[in-house]
Amino acid sequence: MAQQTRTYDVVVLGAGAVGENAADRAGRTGLSVVVVEAELVGGECSYWACMPSKALLRPGAVLAAARGVGGAAQAVTGGVDPAAVLARRDAFASHWDDGSQVAWLAGAGIDLVRGHARLVGPRRVEVATGDGALTLVARHAVVVATGSEPVLPDLPGLAQAVPWTSREATAVHDVPGSLVILGGGVVGVEMATAYADLGAAVTLLVRGDRVLTAAEPFAGRAVGEALVGLGVDVRYGARPTGVTRDTDGVVVELARVGDAAGERVRADELLVATGRRPATGDLGLATVGLEPGSALVVDDALQVTGVDGGWLFAVGDVTGRTTTTHQGKYDARVVGDVVAARFGPGGSGAPDGAAPWSATTATADHAAVPQVVFTRPEVAWVGLTEAAALVAGHPVRTVQVALRSAAGAALAGDDVDGTVQLVVDTEREVLLGATFVGPEVAEMLHAATIAVVGQVPIARLWHAVPAYPTTSEVWLRLLEAYGR
Amino acid sequence: MAQQTRTYDVVVLGAGAVGENAADRAGRTGLSVVVVEAELVGGECSYWACMPSKALLRPGAVLAAARGVGGAAQAVTGGVDPAAVLARRDAFASHWDDGSQVAWLAGAGIDLVRGHARLVGPRRVEVATGDGALTLVARHAVVVATGSEPVLPDLPGLAQAVPWTSREATAVHDVPGSLVILGGGVVGVEMATAYADLGAAVTLLVRGDRVLTAAEPFAGRAVGEALVGLGVDVRYGARPTGVTRDTDGVVVELARVGDAAGERVRADELLVATGRRPATGDLGLATVGLEPGSALVVDDALQVTGVDGGWLFAVGDVTGRTTTTHQGKYDARVVGDVVAARFGPGGSGAPDGAAPWSATTATADHAAVPQVVFTRPEVAWVGLTEAAALVAGHPVRTVQVALRSAAGAALAGDDVDGTVQLVVDTEREVLLGATFVGPEVAEMLHAATIAVVGQVPIARLWHAVPAYPTTSEVWLRLLEAYGR
Repeated sequence: MAQQTRTYDVVVLGAGAVGENAADRAGRTGLSVVVVEAELVGGECSYWACMPSKALLRPGAVLAAARGVGGAAQAVTGGVDPAAVLARRDAFASHWDDGSQVAWLAGAGIDLVRGHARLVGPRRVEVATGDGALTLVARHAVVVATGSEPVLPDLPGLAQAVPWTSREATAVHDVPGSLVILGGGVVGVEMATAYADLGAAVTLLVRGDRVLTAAEPFAGRAVGEALVGLGVDVRYGARPTGVTRDTDGVVVELARVGDAAGERVRADELLVATGRRPATGDLGLATVGLEPGSALVVDDALQVTGVDGGWLFAVGDVTGRTTTTHQGKYDARVVGDVVAARFGPGGSGAPDGAAPWSATTATADHAAVPQVVFTRPEVAWVGLTEAAALVAGHPVRTVQVALRSAAGAALAGDDVDGTVQLVVDTEREVLLGATFVGPEVAEMLHAATIAVVGQVPIARLWHAVPAYPTTSEVWLRLLEAYGR
Repeated sequence: MAQQTRTYDVVVLGAGAVGENAADRAGRTGLSVVVVEAELVGGECSYWACMPSKALLRPGAVLAAARGVGGAAQAVTGGVDPAAVLARRDAFASHWDDGSQVAWLAGAGIDLVRGHARLVGPRRVEVATGDGALTLVARHAVVVATGSEPVLPDLPGLAQAVPWTSREATAVHDVPGSLVILGGGVVGVEMATAYADLGAAVTLLVRGDRVLTAAEPFAGRAVGEALVGLGVDVRYGARPTGVTRDTDGVVVELARVGDAAGERVRADELLVATGRRPATGDLGLATVGLEPGSALVVDDALQVTGVDGGWLFAVGDVTGRTTTTHQGKYDARVVGDVVAARFGPGGSGAPDGAAPWSATTATADHAAVPQVVFTRPEVAWVGLTEAAALVAGHPVRTVQVALRSAAGAALAGDDVDGTVQLVVDTEREVLLGATFVGPEVAEMLHAATIAVVGQVPIARLWHAVPAYPTTSEVWLRLLEAYGR
């Protein structure tokens, strides 16, 4: 086997959306860039997460919206067509073919190496390609964007039962008759919704007393209730003690805890959605003095702390500081600008002491991370929850109004239910966070994100007039609730 | 008949949404307030404009959305049910009964006088009630919020043909088989869409070469093309020369101009939607030195200019400075605060020299008026169009991207088409305006409104991360198009 060495200004590990953005941004100033990817170029989000999951959810959402409006409802005569939903999902997952993304990289002047990459020392990466080992030397920077991988809980029989993770759930070709889902986070509730739409009998096993524990409590409660309305069997306080698979499917044993009596839940398939961890276990981190399996802790320039020489950066899930594609892409833009500023034409090679909210500082990671959950109702939030704001020591007042308090919301759907909440810093009179729960609130979130990021004072927000009659008029109700 | 006189701190003429808001806001500090209304409390918007028109449009919109998504489309087996649409509209128009609004006024401690009001001198208003004449004396302020009325063009035979205005169109009980609409403004295009949904054969006569001339040209062109796709016969450059009604309906004669050959358009009904004028013709303006029929010109505290004593204010359509309910309500909040500040507890009775963007200054009227048109595609814009920004002398750069450039837009609908544009002040690097054209963009507008009003710099907007995969990711494409 040949042993080759190639040198680039920047080596990016991982060609998911985050790695692609980092490579693109760094390369635009003329730095030479290579990305290494062991799987499909485009990554988790394109093939086994955001894209296919939203493609599975959208048909049910539009039918539910139409069913909710008098004058339209009678024209809706059935549910989704599973075969057509899956075919549309296939198209959004590019049929798991990364040709167009490979072409995009080539067009951007970024080299691609396929294979598994490991650090073998400062600025040196070894890639196991189909063709032998290749050593990549980074003149300036290595950017790790290898993402995360699902964590399977330590449960007797689980591995042998060959459970689904989010990959199998989003890439499904034969919808099972029944599905039991372990975990009430974003993946759990979105897949519970999608599979209920697709006609499966769904059981959702939730450890705590509500789903979506990262969101405001009222959001998780609303989604949990709505899942029951969709026919999902939601079990709170569930403590699985073991899993077995037989010829009829999977059985999950539940301990007798709280409400959940000792029980067995049987289904054709089991989806485990209990969390993810940074994918750093087989990256060669030990060769640069870091702990394999741990998150790559970074500063606000996305430089990995604890590594000398200012050459190692990390972005996306692998840092443990973000869990979404969009925020990873934000970090990728920042790291691309950081690398270009330090190592591009005229760069000093060293940190520039940039201020918060500058182009080379990922300030929003602390202040304004948006999250949207495409359940029915949708849940969208940004910034701090009330609890997080209090923990952080902010002087806080929270105002909450019903979505229906805006005439536009009532016009949008006959039985529209939902809640919107602002978390206000009462000293600076700016928004710290906002949460929207209701049908089709996903596109309402960005207004709050701009208000939080722009630190637009409440007094100025009174001059931002929402159009009548849109659901956005709920902003007026929120301001009225806060008082002038 | 009895002749009565009553004295209040504040007399509000007109109990539409705008008058109600002004009364409520002024009254909260303890000032005594009376509103006078000749028709239904709640006004045009509640019974003959925003509410019923959006109620007519929403069912068609949700069905179109469902038809546009593979996996959902096959479940939609027909169009809207006209009877059910009208029944739902009736509910949103409160069956043209103002009982709940009257109760709201009473609850807010605001007196109501029903009848036609005329100024009879400074601070004095005479109301012709069913019960004789009542004189209302305002200790401090009279606020005029009488709105606007449709203008019928000077067209031979038009009045005799008894055309519809927006009132008849939004309050319809028997959908005509065919409708000819004169005017391609907001009312014209919205009603063309609604009546096409309801099954009428619609002809839209447009004077110029596109509809929605107040919006960016690309917006009007998109709506015009879409109306044709809905089966509407759109005639540009149309010059009506006369109207006749016979037993079969209405005939509009068109002159031979431009594309439109001399023709006759026949339909069951004719809707005239060519514009509105401030409703000041019979307000007694001459008794205070103003011209009847003219708009009440106001300063940014909504005080009418050219009247001594600082007692006369005006808000909403009657000022000619705004044409929408939401912006009228904004002015109403400002005038309420102005009146409370000047004449409430501790007030000086005189202008307070407030700065732009203060609570008593209607700054947004010049900088950030939103407008949403509920056609398919929807059109939503705020702030200055490119042309208006150039006329105002701003250093301007405009960036435009396709809605489909955001993955979320493609997920939302299979053939989603649309365009988003920002108008940027290149010196201050802030947004002057934004226009959204596409399905369900109405709720996306408020993000732009907050950015314009908050004067959030472009460099900061890069930190406002849109959630993936939402249509709001189009913001990233816009920022990329502008460049960092």
